[in-house]
Amino acid sequence: MTRVAVLGSGSWGTAFSIVLADAGASVSLWARRPELSSAIAAAGENSAYLPGVPVPPSVVPTADVAEALDGAEVVVLAVPAQTLRSNLEQFAPVLPSSAVLLSLAKGIELHSCKRMSEVVAETTGAPPERIAVLTGPNLAREIASRQPSASVVACADEEVAERLQDVVRTPWFRPYTNSDVVGCELAGAIKNVIALAVGMAAGMGLGDNAKASLVTRGLAETARLGSRLGANPLTFAGLAGLGDLVATCYSPLSRNRSIGERLGQGAALAEAVASLSQTAEGVKSAESVLELASLHEVDMPIAEQVVRVVRDGASPREAVEALMTRSAKPEL
Amino acid sequence: MTRVAVLGSGSWGTAFSIVLADAGASVSLWARRPELSSAIAAAGENSAYLPGVPVPPSVVPTADVAEALDGAEVVVLAVPAQTLRSNLEQFAPVLPSSAVLLSLAKGIELHSCKRMSEVVAETTGAPPERIAVLTGPNLAREIASRQPSASVVACADEEVAERLQDVVRTPWFRPYTNSDVVGCELAGAIKNVIALAVGMAAGMGLGDNAKASLVTRGLAETARLGSRLGANPLTFAGLAGLGDLVATCYSPLSRNRSIGERLGQGAALAEAVASLSQTAEGVKSAESVLELASLHEVDMPIAEQVVRVVRDGASPREAVEALMTRSAKPEL
Repeated sequence: MTRVAVLGSGSWGTAFSIVLADAGASVSLWARRPELSSAIAAAGENSAYLPGVPVPPSVVPTADVAEALDGAEVVVLAVPAQTLRSNLEQFAPVLPSSAVLLSLAKGIELHSCKRMSEVVAETTGAPPERIAVLTGPNLAREIASRQPSASVVACADEEVAERLQDVVRTPWFRPYTNSDVVGCELAGAIKNVIALAVGMAAGMGLGDNAKASLVTRGLAETARLGSRLGANPLTFAGLAGLGDLVATCYSPLSRNRSIGERLGQGAALAEAVASLSQTAEGVKSAESVLELASLHEVDMPIAEQVVRVVRDGASPREAVEALMTRSAKPEL
Repeated sequence: MTRVAVLGSGSWGTAFSIVLADAGASVSLWARRPELSSAIAAAGENSAYLPGVPVPPSVVPTADVAEALDGAEVVVLAVPAQTLRSNLEQFAPVLPSSAVLLSLAKGIELHSCKRMSEVVAETTGAPPERIAVLTGPNLAREIASRQPSASVVACADEEVAERLQDVVRTPWFRPYTNSDVVGCELAGAIKNVIALAVGMAAGMGLGDNAKASLVTRGLAETARLGSRLGANPLTFAGLAGLGDLVATCYSPLSRNRSIGERLGQGAALAEAVASLSQTAEGVKSAESVLELASLHEVDMPIAEQVVRVVRDGASPREAVEALMTRSAKPEL
């Protein structure tokens, strides 16, 4: 039985601990706030983030990180992208030195423009074969309800990816392996930014033709940046790219899509963000994505317009119109 | 002012005649049934297929094909895929010999497994520079309401594609050019088959994770067949591929998606088809797509399961389960 520590008890961390339990692992689920882990233990569910979903008895909630990490062979990082660095600095002394570190966070760090696996490597000194990423069309609420879903486990070391594939596979959760960590992480971070744009278009009343065009052009600009940074272009056509993007842009369960929609309907950013109890990674990652693109001289018109709205306060109407009225040209 | 004949007065033919009129063309709109063209002329709208949408005065409805084609520089083929051959055989004597033939039909001919442009070439003898295709995320109802939309005009001759781009461009309808006719046609035909599968999954109550996975794997099998047949792989990542697929799979306006949904909810095929007043191309094209794939030894598991349901009467539940429980493996 594999011992797994899940660090972070938000909706995705909690849902993923259910996958792990169903797959036969022994799981400890760490929460920063002791009152959250006590509440999960007492109620047998995470009422704050996943109300109505029973957390199996083989998942042990705790607020003591040393206890959570004790003997862990796999450490799942399910904290928000922008706090991963400070969390890992705090955890470092008690991280088992041979554990594989599996990141679930989808974002790009502000200012440093680093991907999550780069933050993991910098803070822990772990080599590439101990760092992996799980991503794909995985809306937490559906995973928690054991809806059939596919996913991607990426690690530079294919044997490690295959080992993790075994640790997380259940009859309803099907992980594929990929060795392209860079592409998987970029796709996962940028889709949140594109979902903000698609949400804005939907909130303004634009139709399915326009939304599908934004999704298509959004994936194209993601792949453009990815190729420049050494990703495999095929990753973007797969579950970590297209799959995750489509799930995020079309599900009412997506936080980034919902915030975009409220912005498109005329809400202010603070108001739109306040309406959700959890982090919408795209709002913060938009800036980092654009900075990364500009460092590498890649044109990302959709990310640029999203930043104009979420950082500079431009109106979503201007932003979406700027995108929909670019001049006609050959597509490819 | 370019003279354009639109052959076919269904919802897409009628909506496209509005695009052409807005773009400044002089348009004749042919209907097979004289009572339909008289009704459009009398009411100033196509109440049967696009109720509530005014047809501009510069669009002239007629049931006389010789009159419609007289002096036409562009002939738009907006009849159902499976009747295109017999229609063209009938039109051939009155087709202007220098007109460009622009196909809007999305399907693969039964038995012959030919793409629409191949049917056009065979029946009219027109050379490749007179045959073009328009495709993309273009739900007719949204186009008719002048919702912002992007599209693709494909022709082996890039100058002809650019000329057509000018003929159909409006401030709200943005055509891109592409020289890959094969890829554009395959993508347009196969997306209807994938939309049936996604509709079935939705009808069975599967969530957005599962639907996004089907869309992703569906585009992958489409691109696999396309590459074998000489298409440009990038076409499938663009508006004609991904864009059209996503619009079709996620819009309540999509006929193929709706039929799939009813099948998934337990309706019989005849019942699901009867609930729509218009052709759902995917039901007929599914068989041709699979035959084409098997001729060229390409594995298309989703098309295969759709055929099991629409031709062989298998239950959608078995079909979708067969897709969701394939063995875990590397993705790429």
